[in-house]
Amino acid sequence: MSVKMTVVGSIAYDTLETPKGKREKALGGSAVYFSTVASYFTKVGLIGVAGKDFAPEHKDFLIKHGIDLSGFELSESGNTFNWVGSYGEDFGDATTHSTCLNVFESFNPKLPEAYENTEYLFLANIHPALQLQMIDKTKNPKLIALDTMNLWINTTNDLLKQAIKKVDILFINQQEALMLSGEKKFANAVEKLLEMGPNRIVIKLGELGAMTATKNSRFFVPAFPCPDITDPTGAGDSFAGGFMGSLARHGNLTESGFRTSMLYGSAMGSITVENFSIESYYNLTNEKIETRFNELKKMVTID
Amino acid sequence: MSVKMTVVGSIAYDTLETPKGKREKALGGSAVYFSTVASYFTKVGLIGVAGKDFAPEHKDFLIKHGIDLSGFELSESGNTFNWVGSYGEDFGDATTHSTCLNVFESFNPKLPEAYENTEYLFLANIHPALQLQMIDKTKNPKLIALDTMNLWINTTNDLLKQAIKKVDILFINQQEALMLSGEKKFANAVEKLLEMGPNRIVIKLGELGAMTATKNSRFFVPAFPCPDITDPTGAGDSFAGGFMGSLARHGNLTESGFRTSMLYGSAMGSITVENFSIESYYNLTNEKIETRFNELKKMVTID
Repeated sequence: MSVKMTVVGSIAYDTLETPKGKREKALGGSAVYFSTVASYFTKVGLIGVAGKDFAPEHKDFLIKHGIDLSGFELSESGNTFNWVGSYGEDFGDATTHSTCLNVFESFNPKLPEAYENTEYLFLANIHPALQLQMIDKTKNPKLIALDTMNLWINTTNDLLKQAIKKVDILFINQQEALMLSGEKKFANAVEKLLEMGPNRIVIKLGELGAMTATKNSRFFVPAFPCPDITDPTGAGDSFAGGFMGSLARHGNLTESGFRTSMLYGSAMGSITVENFSIESYYNLTNEKIETRFNELKKMVTID
Repeated sequence: MSVKMTVVGSIAYDTLETPKGKREKALGGSAVYFSTVASYFTKVGLIGVAGKDFAPEHKDFLIKHGIDLSGFELSESGNTFNWVGSYGEDFGDATTHSTCLNVFESFNPKLPEAYENTEYLFLANIHPALQLQMIDKTKNPKLIALDTMNLWINTTNDLLKQAIKKVDILFINQQEALMLSGEKKFANAVEKLLEMGPNRIVIKLGELGAMTATKNSRFFVPAFPCPDITDPTGAGDSFAGGFMGSLARHGNLTESGFRTSMLYGSAMGSITVENFSIESYYNLTNEKIETRFNELKKMVTID
């Protein structure tokens, strides 16, 4: 069965503590968050690798969400990527206690035949060389988006820039935008990133929300005010999953379509952080998504 | 002649350097920026004190803008408040080299009779005891807004909270919002500030723009992407002048009216920073204001 959207990224077990509690080996990883969220909008295929400790119920969770797993690899050579971290009272940047790449270290993503004609491709935050491979393997998708992080900006800058040159949308946070552009002023950073290839950037602003910019437009979407934040892990990948999922569903690639999708991104990010790991998606209804979307839409409408 | 809006704040001479150049004793101060901007929208009266070095052409500038100067005091006892500072390449926070309060040190604002029935009162960033005095002297204005800064949060916290309790709108920046609320999370800070008295807060987000929040709503307005930023001094007071000026002009105190006014605030902030001091207002046309407003409106409209 062919998929409309493909994500390539990490599958992880997260052991973490927040002011609201803790979890051991909770399901996480960029590809997991993204595909889970996107599954509420479109048919999505997941390319990623898990290890021999990967629990059958976690695979069942993905299957139950209708996620295509032709690209899901279960490696017997080791355990699943494991991140151990904690968040302080401000739920700001996490403190990493350990990162064991395990089977993710030798991750060599393959594109299943069913994904070759994917219309939407999301390259989650992985090594830019792998992102480039996936771009080359897909046949002319409508839209490619790429996420990255400070590690790749610092260690594989040239490769990253090659990859960014070939994508339509760059996802990045505010600090990384300054770092990657070499600019000190935010407005200049935005201009510079748009000169690197993508015709749109989506800048994640943490607690404030997110912004999308093209050469001629800027649009902000606020973060939904969540009094009940429980675990910020996966907020960015969930934003991307809602944003890309909404685009794939309505197919409206005009400025108005992108703005609507920014609201869905913010809605899904806020739903993810209300619970640990992917627990918000155990019983999520479309009604809740639409309610959250409409609340956010009210927050950006003038009249 | 009665005034619709009153501002009380500083009149200053700024000696400053930015990457775009320098100015000696350029006209500045919160009350000057605010009243100059607001004069494009409504009849505004200025309460402030200048010193014996205050140039006649600067008084002429204010008169030419139709600003009521019944509250303007020219003190022969010393020079005008003088700030010396500089901005780095990122045009971020200024480095202060010296602050000479001069006649501003003993500033004791008086409310002229013509201002007693002012409908809109803006208490720019001055000592909270003086802000409280002005609140007590005005007769039931429609709307009082108050701006403050870290200095008063740290040194006169109790008085500041008394003043804040009596106003409708609090202007504050992101860092000060955390400081004043004692919260580490932005969303919590917003809730806490709203419990202190004001039913609306306007949070200045620097290069990103600004947000306004009530108990049930949030609205963001982006900063206009200015490639030609010259001098960031006065951006916040100009934002406030555009915001309050627009409110006074249209008189629509519904959420929709406040959102429209946020756009005018952002428009005027962006116009101020295009030139040094108040130089943008030498030849500003209403047409330019409306064009900037409409460009910003496009940036926040989905369909």
